[in-house]
Amino acid sequence: MTEEAKMQTSKGSVDATPRFEECKAVAKLHQLASNPFDLTGEGGLTPERVNTFVSEACGLKLLYATERVDERVISVLEDLAGETRAVEKMQQMQNGEVINSIEGYPSENRAVLHTAMRDFFEVPSMAKAAQEAAALAKEELHKLQVFTEDIEGKFTDMVMIGIGGSDLGPRALYLALEKYHTRDRHVHFIANIDPDDAAMVLKGVDLAKTLVVIVSKSGTTLETLTNEEIVRARFSQAGLDPNRHCVAVTGQGSPMDDPSRYLESFYIWDYVGGRYSATSMVGGVMLAFGVGYDNFWDLLHGASAMDKVALDGDVKKNLPLLSALLGIWNRNFLGYPTVVVVPYSQLLHRFPAHLQQCDMESNGKQIDKRGRAVDFQTGPVVWGEPGTNGQHSFFQLIHQGTTPVPAEFIGFSESQFSQDIEVQGTSSQEKLLSNLFAQALALAVGQKSDNPNQNFPGNRPSRVLLGQKLTPYTLGALLAYYEHKVAFQGFVWNINSFDQEGVQLGKILATKFLDVFKGKTGDFSIGEALLKQLPR
Amino acid sequence: MTEEAKMQTSKGSVDATPRFEECKAVAKLHQLASNPFDLTGEGGLTPERVNTFVSEACGLKLLYATERVDERVISVLEDLAGETRAVEKMQQMQNGEVINSIEGYPSENRAVLHTAMRDFFEVPSMAKAAQEAAALAKEELHKLQVFTEDIEGKFTDMVMIGIGGSDLGPRALYLALEKYHTRDRHVHFIANIDPDDAAMVLKGVDLAKTLVVIVSKSGTTLETLTNEEIVRARFSQAGLDPNRHCVAVTGQGSPMDDPSRYLESFYIWDYVGGRYSATSMVGGVMLAFGVGYDNFWDLLHGASAMDKVALDGDVKKNLPLLSALLGIWNRNFLGYPTVVVVPYSQLLHRFPAHLQQCDMESNGKQIDKRGRAVDFQTGPVVWGEPGTNGQHSFFQLIHQGTTPVPAEFIGFSESQFSQDIEVQGTSSQEKLLSNLFAQALALAVGQKSDNPNQNFPGNRPSRVLLGQKLTPYTLGALLAYYEHKVAFQGFVWNINSFDQEGVQLGKILATKFLDVFKGKTGDFSIGEALLKQLPR
Repeated sequence: MTEEAKMQTSKGSVDATPRFEECKAVAKLHQLASNPFDLTGEGGLTPERVNTFVSEACGLKLLYATERVDERVISVLEDLAGETRAVEKMQQMQNGEVINSIEGYPSENRAVLHTAMRDFFEVPSMAKAAQEAAALAKEELHKLQVFTEDIEGKFTDMVMIGIGGSDLGPRALYLALEKYHTRDRHVHFIANIDPDDAAMVLKGVDLAKTLVVIVSKSGTTLETLTNEEIVRARFSQAGLDPNRHCVAVTGQGSPMDDPSRYLESFYIWDYVGGRYSATSMVGGVMLAFGVGYDNFWDLLHGASAMDKVALDGDVKKNLPLLSALLGIWNRNFLGYPTVVVVPYSQLLHRFPAHLQQCDMESNGKQIDKRGRAVDFQTGPVVWGEPGTNGQHSFFQLIHQGTTPVPAEFIGFSESQFSQDIEVQGTSSQEKLLSNLFAQALALAVGQKSDNPNQNFPGNRPSRVLLGQKLTPYTLGALLAYYEHKVAFQGFVWNINSFDQEGVQLGKILATKFLDVFKGKTGDFSIGEALLKQLPR
Repeated sequence: MTEEAKMQTSKGSVDATPRFEECKAVAKLHQLASNPFDLTGEGGLTPERVNTFVSEACGLKLLYATERVDERVISVLEDLAGETRAVEKMQQMQNGEVINSIEGYPSENRAVLHTAMRDFFEVPSMAKAAQEAAALAKEELHKLQVFTEDIEGKFTDMVMIGIGGSDLGPRALYLALEKYHTRDRHVHFIANIDPDDAAMVLKGVDLAKTLVVIVSKSGTTLETLTNEEIVRARFSQAGLDPNRHCVAVTGQGSPMDDPSRYLESFYIWDYVGGRYSATSMVGGVMLAFGVGYDNFWDLLHGASAMDKVALDGDVKKNLPLLSALLGIWNRNFLGYPTVVVVPYSQLLHRFPAHLQQCDMESNGKQIDKRGRAVDFQTGPVVWGEPGTNGQHSFFQLIHQGTTPVPAEFIGFSESQFSQDIEVQGTSSQEKLLSNLFAQALALAVGQKSDNPNQNFPGNRPSRVLLGQKLTPYTLGALLAYYEHKVAFQGFVWNINSFDQEGVQLGKILATKFLDVFKGKTGDFSIGEALLKQLPR
């Protein structure tokens, strides 16, 4: 590429942030990491430490006494946030500056404004781009309110068709609000191109009373359009007009923005990335149906409150930033390659899958914002299952495996359903919380034993996020907490967390394989060889 | 511990296997790993290689051309299997020898005989312990057949209560056989101590027509007994006798083996570990109800067929061993800390969670079978979600992240429901398979580009397991393939894959926290400090 071409393709301002490994704080942190805080001994994890290493915002408390940090490490992590201008970049993001870009190379060159999808509460942004985006989002919310009233009583079931960002986040939120589900209404999800996914969902629904929401920003997603065709064919076979059962969530002017085929089109914009779209109409249309508009509004309120917290320059009050920095300590300085997220709440059972997408698609990158190969580790593998279930599964490795796995626990003082009984003197919720704290403690302090099989090395880091109850508001705050944690890690690493070029090569090759299936073999001999291996 | 005590506590024979890092093959593999096979260049991943690097058993084909191995590496991996007597140990396991032990220390000292739960087909084991175990298992199967006929027409719903091994495997199998579900019957699962788990399930069932299966080998699992009490209270509140709705799956003589409280008790034994118990009555009672006894029998047949394959001394025919060795190459020689399992089958959406348990609880260990600390990496972090969904989520990191993640793909030529339509010239199943192969290929060959954001390093290993269709038989074979892959890795590393001491410390500490909740504070000041942080 010529220099001239490079200049033309870059719209972003020149980035003056130092490279991660050149930060002064990074050098200091490498030194400190040679002797991290010892949680196992006397004077390690004390009650005083527990009471000190706590931050709180939006009703969520972050306990990080069980991380391998001391005040000195925290202080240098704060320096790192300053040196990399992390909060300033968050402000730029929420202001609607073009931050989704790679300097000097063709890139998406977009603003990143998912926060504008919910900026309707206490102190809305004063930035023009953010205000314009919020105004457009508000229009869609009004449309949604009207639509929700119009369809009242007409449908019992909703099938949401979408994949990736148009599936994982919304689905996780819907499942997390089980107690708030609208009476006598059910929501189902089809995501996979696997025809068994649609078959499985469709065997259980009464099409005459079913509304279908199809979600694709571009209006061209292979899986989604194919599944839409499958569902439309079923309506036609049943003598029903699919156009009277389908709703679109898409970009204005996309192939799916077509009033002849959809009852209504709700809009999303290119400044809302898929994995950050749960609070836009991508999640909104389904949630307004499934849990009610008011509960969706409360969720937006919680998310927006956390958005404001993310702008706080005081690291100890800025929960997402603090969590991001602790993660960077574990990833880049203690050298741990994965993170496990364990919600002690069965209702959050699909929340780790959403976070997995949000984090790994954002920060699984190998170049920085100026297109240079990074010389440090970026995003970890993020995975998880609910506790206490996980304790009877993978926790063996977390405690005694050869690769430590930093853990992020999530818990609530109260259950959502408030249906609990005492067995052997304690409620189930008390048993649940006892297990949560016991795991954090066991990982931290370990245990010495003459029997080597009962040795626990300890010093395995974790942190705990605690809320009072999993309400729509709290769920919104939790969602935004993780969105911003991911963004902050990207800001500190100086990578672009908002594109996903890594998914393109597979798409291109899949098209070649489709040609082989169609009998157009061409020169794709490796494809023919692979397909020949399919059992018949 | 005295020498005498050590002798008394060990029943196993003295283990003559060399330590992993002392194996001759290990030294050679370290050398070979400095220059692993290059998949990216000309002459790398050729059609000939695809046709050569294939093994097949029980209708499953293992394609490993996209791993970074050549014939030389395969040959030394075969040597490693020989040196560590991997197949001999598998034979000992299936014969019922006491292999669940740590030499010289107190340990479970048990046989490991999940294979006997299904050894009723072509060539049953001739070993006495295995035959006795199979005979006992057969008795339970007969009981199950009779019970299944007795309850015909009486129940529409089943609630299965169990956690860990009594949940993940059976649940994954039930969900994988959606097309085979018994008409007008539904199975629900309660696992978590979280009271919202039970509340969520119970809001949807008609108790009068509900059968409850409670699964706990010891009859003392906290979560399971608590949830049983919750469910029993609901029956009583509804004026129903819980004793006429509950069935136990437990060890003979356990507190749950009580005919006054259960319609029937089905037995399991201490030589069947929880995570290996899906083909015992732990999975059987639920599956006979949910998919029918005959389909459960077919699943046992498939599992047993793979058990026999695991005894084959020819590594290239022994699929689980071959896969185990490829995993060891990636883990110990190429240094990759995690493994992602991606079934291109939506019906297998909970199968990775089962494998996660099976693998991480088995091989997340830090001592060898003689109680010595290991000086090499043992079990990796295993995680996964179905494709194509994952492509729109974490695949960004798999392609372009800084930590390569070896992938295990699973696919089938045909869908289970056989409900498919052509869109744009291909069926959904064809699109699904195109995507599967495209990902394996893209990870292997990568792509060079002037735009650094479109650079794909390639040489990211994967293997593909292909079947014709996800039938009960194939599912059984797939289950056993992974069970034995895990066991083989444990054999080669010479660790004990069949205990789980790492879960004990958390249990002990949870009990202390429960005491704090009960107001018995004692000397547990750290517990009080942690609980004080709960939001109110």
